[in-house]
Amino acid sequence: MSLPRSPLAPAATQSLPALDGASLATANSGIRYKGRDDVLLIALDPATTVAGVLTRSLAPSAPVDWCRARLKGGKARAILVNAGNANAFTGKAGMQAVKRSAAAAAALIGCKASEVFVASTGVIGVPLDAGKIEAALPGLGRALDAGAWDKAAAAIMTTDTFPKTATRTARIGNATVTLNGIAKGSGMIAPDMATMLAFVVTDAALPAPVLRALLKRANEQSFNCTTVDGDTSTSDTLLLCATGRAAGQPRVTSASDRRLAGFARALDEITRDLAIQVVRDGEGAEKFVTIAVTGAASDAAAKRIALAIANSPLVKTAIAGADANWGRIVMAVGKAGEKADRDRLRIAIGGVTVALRGAVAPGYDETPVAGHMKGREIDIAVDVGVGRGRATVWTCDLTHGYIRINGDYRS
Amino acid sequence: MSLPRSPLAPAATQSLPALDGASLATANSGIRYKGRDDVLLIALDPATTVAGVLTRSLAPSAPVDWCRARLKGGKARAILVNAGNANAFTGKAGMQAVKRSAAAAAALIGCKASEVFVASTGVIGVPLDAGKIEAALPGLGRALDAGAWDKAAAAIMTTDTFPKTATRTARIGNATVTLNGIAKGSGMIAPDMATMLAFVVTDAALPAPVLRALLKRANEQSFNCTTVDGDTSTSDTLLLCATGRAAGQPRVTSASDRRLAGFARALDEITRDLAIQVVRDGEGAEKFVTIAVTGAASDAAAKRIALAIANSPLVKTAIAGADANWGRIVMAVGKAGEKADRDRLRIAIGGVTVALRGAVAPGYDETPVAGHMKGREIDIAVDVGVGRGRATVWTCDLTHGYIRINGDYRS
Repeated sequence: MSLPRSPLAPAATQSLPALDGASLATANSGIRYKGRDDVLLIALDPATTVAGVLTRSLAPSAPVDWCRARLKGGKARAILVNAGNANAFTGKAGMQAVKRSAAAAAALIGCKASEVFVASTGVIGVPLDAGKIEAALPGLGRALDAGAWDKAAAAIMTTDTFPKTATRTARIGNATVTLNGIAKGSGMIAPDMATMLAFVVTDAALPAPVLRALLKRANEQSFNCTTVDGDTSTSDTLLLCATGRAAGQPRVTSASDRRLAGFARALDEITRDLAIQVVRDGEGAEKFVTIAVTGAASDAAAKRIALAIANSPLVKTAIAGADANWGRIVMAVGKAGEKADRDRLRIAIGGVTVALRGAVAPGYDETPVAGHMKGREIDIAVDVGVGRGRATVWTCDLTHGYIRINGDYRS
Repeated sequence: MSLPRSPLAPAATQSLPALDGASLATANSGIRYKGRDDVLLIALDPATTVAGVLTRSLAPSAPVDWCRARLKGGKARAILVNAGNANAFTGKAGMQAVKRSAAAAAALIGCKASEVFVASTGVIGVPLDAGKIEAALPGLGRALDAGAWDKAAAAIMTTDTFPKTATRTARIGNATVTLNGIAKGSGMIAPDMATMLAFVVTDAALPAPVLRALLKRANEQSFNCTTVDGDTSTSDTLLLCATGRAAGQPRVTSASDRRLAGFARALDEITRDLAIQVVRDGEGAEKFVTIAVTGAASDAAAKRIALAIANSPLVKTAIAGADANWGRIVMAVGKAGEKADRDRLRIAIGGVTVALRGAVAPGYDETPVAGHMKGREIDIAVDVGVGRGRATVWTCDLTHGYIRINGDYRS
């Protein structure tokens, strides 16, 4: 099944620059797809440090188990990714396939297998043929190219309708560093985390513990603020690698070092940019929805309320139908299980207050709200009237397209 | 919008017998619907006791607030229900409408307003015109009839495509008592509780604390085991009233009295019967799905895992598409957050083991499973391999019909 490009896709794909210390290659491995690349190798400088965030699913894929164990070392020499087969729920054979692939990539690169990170996305429960990855590796080794970022973003796609890329630069002391990110995902998307693979590489020089602290924060305000269908993948993987190759960097050893403020902001931006692109490619999505909750007991409470709204099938179908059905937003606030004052609740859609102090807003005119609901970008703001906690999450509507993609075809 | 009868509806509606101590009447109030009754009055014997379970929504409707306060008294003389307007998020005017309606009904019946229970279902956020209910009450008073149960079940419907009724008899000592139940609900259905109104009346003589204990247990194994869309209503109300009028009953004062075993079983059955009818009328439902989880750390853990499967849009759309996509069941088990052993997980569909010990079952033949998935009644059994906890929940598939009902029209 080939899907048309999402109507919410960015007008243009951000083209990523070469970045010192990282080279990439893609190939068709024959695992599942015909006529497109489906395997990606990223080779990294020997000094590269790494941090990661992995799915909290209690039935994780073999590659997730592998990465979780390898992240403790904090060193990465390669990332090996395949699309079309998730190598999840594949029993002992699944881990054997990971080990074989990692060993083959390590031999090619000249590093330890424990420095090779592996990620797989696609169908669950089908054994992954590691032989096909092994067979593709020599060609990948020959093709490694510092400029192949855009091809890399395309090779990791599954039901995605566009490749997801983002790039930023930042200053650390007097040095300029670059951050490049690629991601894939469009369904089975929910926090902790999106069904999602994302890889961010920078030429900054930062120890693994610093990367871990920065990535944890960046993930919380990006991927963990998105949802498409509330479903959590077995395979979610976000990796941040730092090659250290940008010239003239000061030595930074703490995530709270003030010289990292710009880098942290760039990392926050790049992860948010990628996370929002994933939502914009939500399966069947016709509308991109921003839900801002304020006045909650805490930021965490605000996020839970926002996600209850974002995951409500009744809210999502109302948005699909361009129906300013704020009663369903009240329902979702009520079911979130977080403190809210029904009689101080305030709801605005497209900047227009529709409900206030426990009832419809006085003199409420639906006309501008109905116009807003017909657009592609929907803004919902809810103040729950009990405190100062706030959060913003991003989601999409629930459409016939979602049912078609997930119900009408075997995926 | 008038919807065709659900393909999952029972072949025939159970016709309810008259029951001593309860009389009913319905009318068209003009609140919302044309050409059908939309208001129901149940008048109850002066000795009637009552227990109830109400939505845990933190943004409950005015009638829910009213009932919660009144249930403490344990006495009921009337139940007044309207369909078409939920009287939820209607501010202070909402509670005023409840008070006016209850006072008018109390004057009609000759009881205190605090003995009148009120329930409303329908659109949220639109002020309820209590004048229309007051205007309907005299006619309702004249029409009260012990045999009007079937009309009562029809009058409380909103997007329901069939009325939901159930009846049982039980022995308490040497006396035979009758239980009649009616319910409505088809969307915004999730535990705690279904978007759902249900009223069970019996001629047994039982003190309110006994009713409370029995109803709590009955609700846990019925309405709290069902989900259509994971959304929780502002208005869920389940009431159990006992008129005490059946002849020859022994005096029973404890819910654990062994003479109540038959009554408790009948109450469990009637609530489960009604709950399953609500799921069978799930908006757009084409398939009725039973999910049985075993081998969990506790019964509560099993229920959370079963509900994670039942609420997963990816599982529900796969079922809609008759796709035996057990990988999505693995995903849902993983996201439930409860202890499960991926490498001991066992999944059966339609009685055929599809996955075993962390991988596809040896020699798995999809043919009989594909046949099962094409039917109306889908059985999924999951053993998570860590303990002895078990639970069964009921749900339906997620179809284009759901999107059409909730997205294509203002509801």
